[in-house]
Amino acid sequence: MANKEEAKGLAALRRQIDQLDDQLLELLNRRATLAMEVAQVKQAAGENGTFWRPEREAEVLQRVMARNPGPLDSETVAWLFRELMSACLALERPLTVAYLGPAGTFTQMAATKHFGQGARLTPVSSIPEVFRTVQAGQADFGVVPVENSTEGSVNLTLDHLLDYPLKVCGEVQLRVVHNLVSAGVPLADMQRIYVHYQTRAQCRHWLAEHAPRVQLVEVASNAEAALRAREDAAGGAISTAAAAELYGLRILAAGIEDDAENTTRFLVIGDLDVQPTGRDKTSLVLSSHNRPGSLHELLRPLAAAGISMTRIESRPARRGLWQYVFFLDLEGHAKDPAVAAALAELQEKATFYKLLGTYPKAVI
Amino acid sequence: MANKEEAKGLAALRRQIDQLDDQLLELLNRRATLAMEVAQVKQAAGENGTFWRPEREAEVLQRVMARNPGPLDSETVAWLFRELMSACLALERPLTVAYLGPAGTFTQMAATKHFGQGARLTPVSSIPEVFRTVQAGQADFGVVPVENSTEGSVNLTLDHLLDYPLKVCGEVQLRVVHNLVSAGVPLADMQRIYVHYQTRAQCRHWLAEHAPRVQLVEVASNAEAALRAREDAAGGAISTAAAAELYGLRILAAGIEDDAENTTRFLVIGDLDVQPTGRDKTSLVLSSHNRPGSLHELLRPLAAAGISMTRIESRPARRGLWQYVFFLDLEGHAKDPAVAAALAELQEKATFYKLLGTYPKAVI
Repeated sequence: MANKEEAKGLAALRRQIDQLDDQLLELLNRRATLAMEVAQVKQAAGENGTFWRPEREAEVLQRVMARNPGPLDSETVAWLFRELMSACLALERPLTVAYLGPAGTFTQMAATKHFGQGARLTPVSSIPEVFRTVQAGQADFGVVPVENSTEGSVNLTLDHLLDYPLKVCGEVQLRVVHNLVSAGVPLADMQRIYVHYQTRAQCRHWLAEHAPRVQLVEVASNAEAALRAREDAAGGAISTAAAAELYGLRILAAGIEDDAENTTRFLVIGDLDVQPTGRDKTSLVLSSHNRPGSLHELLRPLAAAGISMTRIESRPARRGLWQYVFFLDLEGHAKDPAVAAALAELQEKATFYKLLGTYPKAVI
Repeated sequence: MANKEEAKGLAALRRQIDQLDDQLLELLNRRATLAMEVAQVKQAAGENGTFWRPEREAEVLQRVMARNPGPLDSETVAWLFRELMSACLALERPLTVAYLGPAGTFTQMAATKHFGQGARLTPVSSIPEVFRTVQAGQADFGVVPVENSTEGSVNLTLDHLLDYPLKVCGEVQLRVVHNLVSAGVPLADMQRIYVHYQTRAQCRHWLAEHAPRVQLVEVASNAEAALRAREDAAGGAISTAAAAELYGLRILAAGIEDDAENTTRFLVIGDLDVQPTGRDKTSLVLSSHNRPGSLHELLRPLAAAGISMTRIESRPARRGLWQYVFFLDLEGHAKDPAVAAALAELQEKATFYKLLGTYPKAVI
């Protein structure tokens, strides 16, 4: 303590903080009590199973972010409320969540980001097993990558969404940062760089500029790239910080991806209908007659209603009748009148139509 | 929604929750503002470097746990406040913390448990490097295992505490749960179980009862046990859930350790004197003349003052003069009058004496 004045000032501030903490403590517990009352009302009304309402949680988060006066930033505030809601929920019964393991992966980070520390996360070994686990009721929800630009497991998720009666209940976005890593060898002495082919494409400019003469060895995943670099004294890897940490590698250059806004997207799947929040997305899959211009024609109702498509992806159909199916993501909830009308039109026109889910946009 | 009554009840509860959230939002930000004022007072008084005061943080946590009315349990409350303080601190400057990596280990869990999500954690590859990194000022604090009953890296920590001028600023306790895991093979068909020798000792009763005829293969760590089991279709391992998750193994039996209160202890090291909180510990190392009964005689002042020793461990001295050094942990702070008097006596009697640190007990 530098002097008396300082000590006095600090003591006064700390008394204020202590008083604030008492109030916080009371409010946090009152909030938990109210959450328990919500659960009791639902139980009394015969609702069984999970008390988690993704739309309500998204609303709460959107609300506190919008109203946050600072100085805490809105992401931090949303994160604290997420954890508080997760803890409140765990007082009733912790949510069980199956995710594509192993632990330490992006999917685990996504699951934790979405469900908080109060949930019980279980890694399972494959995307099909995530679906099976949730379908069998062994987990309340599942988390799977869907636009995983780096691990290449998207198609399995799409195929299973098509096959399973489960619904998409939410999405999670994670920023992806690529790094040049090695067990010790500096870039100047590097003879090989292990890299996943999609990652390679995402770091093309950096590689051309900084490692034009280094051999690029393609591997199946970013985790494998890190693993190979660990075993090769003259080799580096492009990998995520998580994988580098996992395998004890040094980060030689961080954030070397060409597009700094590179994100990976995950879906939350479960057996739950999610109500509108005002900031929603809808995912569906459909097929049309196999003739020129048919897709364009099929999508006309969306364009006419001014509904944004945030994503479209075609996949070869695996059975009969049509050659391709199209996975679409739209802005808006399937119960929003404009969306509902457009979807009804789409459904009429399409030879195949399945609503995969309608759910809140990722809040943080 | 089952009926109108339920809907009305829920809507009312949710309005109450929204109002509470507004109050929480305001209080959280007022707390952050006060924390920034604390930092300004310190800065004005010429205090540089870290604004983190472990004794103050421990007091806050002890306080909210003691006053917590529920229904949230005290650990959850302490955890939320830990995260809030971590976020407040990060508004000034995030703490940087070096820990014994790789990521996904107990030490990372311990670092996160102690410093919260607002801190910047960096894995380094060895215990010596944690000390070097903190000593060089490249990290504010370091986290190292000290009584790691399962990974066997304790001695290095003790030796470096002896050699470095850094102080022990805190401790973290983590419960250790052992599990029988495998890549798929059930216990009935298991031919081998990979196990760390200390883990084996901790699971002796369970192994004798459930796997009396399975070969036990000793390996160097729990992580290696998991790794070997992954590669051996007829092999299982005893390992932590974290390692099982990391390597995508199934947990066949959880919590098979003989002592359910088995914990691992970590120390926080840094260049910081920590003030008393009322629930403290003191770590020191000393040596006595090498003659029979000398240790007993040396420790008399502690016994006389009624000070509990929570741990004593002898280590061969690595240089001159004496043969053994003794690492002691005591209850109480070095500035508590009774402790201070006993330590002064100890110091006089001992041929070597070094106060390693005096710091708050682990709160959660």
